[in-house]
Amino acid sequence: MSWFQQEVLLPRFSRGCHIITRHVVEALPEIGQVRIGLLHVFIQHTSASLSINENADADVPHDLEKALASIAPDDFPYQHTIEGADDMSGHVKASLLGSSVTVPVRDGRMVLGTWQGIYLCEHRRQGGRRRLVLTLNGET
Amino acid sequence: MSWFQQEVLLPRFSRGCHIITRHVVEALPEIGQVRIGLLHVFIQHTSASLSINENADADVPHDLEKALASIAPDDFPYQHTIEGADDMSGHVKASLLGSSVTVPVRDGRMVLGTWQGIYLCEHRRQGGRRRLVLTLNGET
Amino acid sequence: MSWFQQEVLLPRFSRGCHIITRHVVEALPEIGQVRIGLLHVFIQHTSASLSINENADADVPHDLEKALASIAPDDFPYQHTIEGADDMSGHVKASLLGSSVTVPVRDGRMVLGTWQGIYLCEHRRQGGRRRLVLTLNGET
Repeated sequence: MSWFQQEVLLPRFSRGCHIITRHVVEALPEIGQVRIGLLHVFIQHTSASLSINENADADVPHDLEKALASIAPDDFPYQHTIEGADDMSGHVKASLLGSSVTVPVRDGRMVLGTWQGIYLCEHRRQGGRRRLVLTLNGET
Repeated sequence: MSWFQQEVLLPRFSRGCHIITRHVVEALPEIGQVRIGLLHVFIQHTSASLSINENADADVPHDLEKALASIAPDDFPYQHTIEGADDMSGHVKASLLGSSVTVPVRDGRMVLGTWQGIYLCEHRRQGGRRRLVLTLNGET
Repeated sequence: MSWFQQEVLLPRFSRGCHIITRHVVEALPEIGQVRIGLLHVFIQHTSASLSINENADADVPHDLEKALASIAPDDFPYQHTIEGADDMSGHVKASLLGSSVTVPVRDGRMVLGTWQGIYLCEHRRQGGRRRLVLTLNGET
């Protein structure tokens, strides 16, 4: 039974949804030692989110961003506007999508479906580099 | 300390939300051995979701489906339309609801509230059979 | 390797989003013993949710409540209305936000970002006291 924990500082991403599966896998080679387990990916921010979605067609993250902008529009009459028009809408999206994803691990790999990838959804135009905390627990 | 992992191929469900608590429990009798632990239920698809909601009144899953169809409508101007009108809306709902639920386990049972059940929300008219990965970890 | 599980009966909260980080931390002093681990916080109800969001400006939970009321309005034509106008909208919000959050633990503390707090989002005007189940697993 083993625990591994690793911080990851992602590169800067533009507002929108981006596949980061590779960043996660490369940061935690210890996944290769785990026979059965769970990988928890956590983002330490409140205006960016993690999600799992389609990894094949670049139109999917693009459409997801457009849909989110329609569900939680920047121009809603928020009170919290001091950090800019995309800040409070970003907090709403962060609660809708969530700050972590948990993925099963088996025989040294994440057990994602064929079309699944891990998304960073950056809700701000100038969000900067985002920090993840990866926690892996399993039978080695 | 024990780990159990089990794949479950659900029956085909129509578009909408469906209670699948029984399918989960029956697939993993090892829950009965766990004194304290967590059960992670993961869906390996990006146009169907897992959620926890009311297990009593059949109007709740029906209304939830109607509400989701209003929040992420099929006729939004998506670019990703090649797989049909309910595909991209399904991806949006998958990110809103999420691809996994985690439930505490105590004394051999999931510690759900009285009115809680596990939902499969099928976002496609012809989604086919969906695959889950159950991962159980706990003190036996 | 250790498991801890603790029920918490929260005080009664008004409809809206409320920071409950302190309630969680105080209920589980065993966090202090964990070197690497995960804390799972689960709510046993279907018209209240858990989320992680900004812990600094009281306008954020206020705006989040307003945004949620706009995304899942009380006056949508639901069939499930027997428990009042805020019940079915509460179930929709419960599926959108989710019934649990999982937070990494390191060196005896939750590894939340500087601005992150745990939110209880109470979706009902008279929701009463809500019950959480905290499950902590880690290397001690």
